[in-house]
Amino acid sequence: MTNPVPMAEIWRGPILESVHLGHAVICDDTGQIVEAWGDPQAIVLPRSSSKMIQALPLLTSGAAKAAGLGGEHLALACASHNAAAIHIDRVQAWLDHIGKADDDFRCGPQEPRDIEIRDAMIREGRAPCRIHNNCSGKHAGFLTLSDHLGAGPDYVDPDHPVQMACKTAFEDVTGEESPGFGIDGCSAPNFATSLHGMARAMAFFAAARDGAGTQQTAAAALVQAMVTYPELVAGEGRACTELMRAMDGRVALKTGAEAFFIAIIPERKLGVALKITDGGTRGAECAIAAILVRLGLLDANHPAARKFLNAPIRNFAGLETGSIRPAAAFAA
Amino acid sequence: MTNPVPMAEIWRGPILESVHLGHAVICDDTGQIVEAWGDPQAIVLPRSSSKMIQALPLLTSGAAKAAGLGGEHLALACASHNAAAIHIDRVQAWLDHIGKADDDFRCGPQEPRDIEIRDAMIREGRAPCRIHNNCSGKHAGFLTLSDHLGAGPDYVDPDHPVQMACKTAFEDVTGEESPGFGIDGCSAPNFATSLHGMARAMAFFAAARDGAGTQQTAAAALVQAMVTYPELVAGEGRACTELMRAMDGRVALKTGAEAFFIAIIPERKLGVALKITDGGTRGAECAIAAILVRLGLLDANHPAARKFLNAPIRNFAGLETGSIRPAAAFAA
Repeated sequence: MTNPVPMAEIWRGPILESVHLGHAVICDDTGQIVEAWGDPQAIVLPRSSSKMIQALPLLTSGAAKAAGLGGEHLALACASHNAAAIHIDRVQAWLDHIGKADDDFRCGPQEPRDIEIRDAMIREGRAPCRIHNNCSGKHAGFLTLSDHLGAGPDYVDPDHPVQMACKTAFEDVTGEESPGFGIDGCSAPNFATSLHGMARAMAFFAAARDGAGTQQTAAAALVQAMVTYPELVAGEGRACTELMRAMDGRVALKTGAEAFFIAIIPERKLGVALKITDGGTRGAECAIAAILVRLGLLDANHPAARKFLNAPIRNFAGLETGSIRPAAAFAA
Repeated sequence: MTNPVPMAEIWRGPILESVHLGHAVICDDTGQIVEAWGDPQAIVLPRSSSKMIQALPLLTSGAAKAAGLGGEHLALACASHNAAAIHIDRVQAWLDHIGKADDDFRCGPQEPRDIEIRDAMIREGRAPCRIHNNCSGKHAGFLTLSDHLGAGPDYVDPDHPVQMACKTAFEDVTGEESPGFGIDGCSAPNFATSLHGMARAMAFFAAARDGAGTQQTAAAALVQAMVTYPELVAGEGRACTELMRAMDGRVALKTGAEAFFIAIIPERKLGVALKITDGGTRGAECAIAAILVRLGLLDANHPAARKFLNAPIRNFAGLETGSIRPAAAFAA
């Protein structure tokens, strides 16, 4: 076991105020580690960074095709969205299309992250619904798959055919038997793996080719959907959306709760998996940006890169009081 | 330099998902370390955990007495409040009493943490004001002191007599020359010290007696105000408020941004200072509760203790998906 390494620092004036430690692995499509920081064997819950894996059975089962789903649906299935209008309107149309309603979702209601929608709902006295849960696109995919399989309504039960298909896909692409699972924020099982296993899975997505078998065809379609609709995968201002745009579709990115982050790099058939061990999201955003710069994929001077790589910290009066920056020895 | 030690763990199902590391010092009133974890010499910004120090000049100058301030005012001067009605109404009355208005504050506007007030303001289309800043009580104290000193309006300038008085008080009670400062979330300077220095300062507050000189009399009055009005120091549901209540006024507690926490224990003349190095507040709340249980001051079975010591993590559907708990080797 190697200890986690310093990845991101929080400075306030001349004082180093806080530090985020983490583990990271870059893996190629043969499953070999190209580079690693900290402990590649650390057992992790990839949380929402595994959504593109959870979406594989939606495609490989034929459910997506049968329901006539397109790229926007697939991007939403992989999304942790802001519940902005662009997200909610599309998920609602998807629900309508498959004849389902908010009550059919098994995720809990969540206050929209999008301030415009949040404030409008407060003004109108409307409580958050399940569709506002940041995972509602994934759950629309689960519902579509569940119907296609003729399975019951409790699609988040670990023994439900939907989750059994997700587990099979997860172990297939990580190349490891999962040592267990936790229940995610949206009530679905989230399977554990080693960080190496997760990077291996992302390398599989990076190398996947349309036409090279069912699983690869599905993976390639999901990556294509993510980079084509970066605004659907997260939302305005978010790291996934802004950094994917900054790289012009060359890299797919996905955050996960508790400071997980992955990158899928098709042009090099590389996968990256990263975990800040304290769960601090700001650290994961800074660290993934640093790795992308090191790999020559992200221009350090792009405004989006600067925003996450050397993020100014502003106080309530708008004063710049400090910054978040990569630790000097990390990904230099 | 000793490395920080694991203090709090986040578990999700059978998986250890995240870990918070930190430094902590327990100090007695002779300035000696009674017990320490990690590095007592770590340089820290105590952020809002230093508010009772920043309030000392308000009393020692005679400004508080001249303005007729009582215990509620002093508790608010030490507070990082929720901007609930109980806070805002009192700070507004204080402002009125000293003939000042919202524009006189030098802290920026902040959306109220109190959901009832926040939603009411959104419904009424009212933007947050400076009084809603969690530090507005401290700033009402700064304004009171500034007027008493006949000083100018820019009381957050590091060279302003108010901040020079704060720095003198800070170095006096920490027993160290401050190595520098950062600008805080409320735009006031926040002075750095070693963790040992901060624990020494808290032991000074713990041992302070009314009548034993100006500085001790002021410190004793501030501690008394904090434990008498725990609801004013933070707010309903907050760790400071709930844990102070659980200990029936025997201990004064104060959180600070970036996972700082202090405890002032008059009956033992002990001070505690704690910093989670990644800035994760949940870790600091868990760790300070663990230290208070270890010291025999907090009943581990009290509902408030359980809430922070072994906090269930619930998802948007209300399911318990995991917990935050002290690391096994810490404060056992």
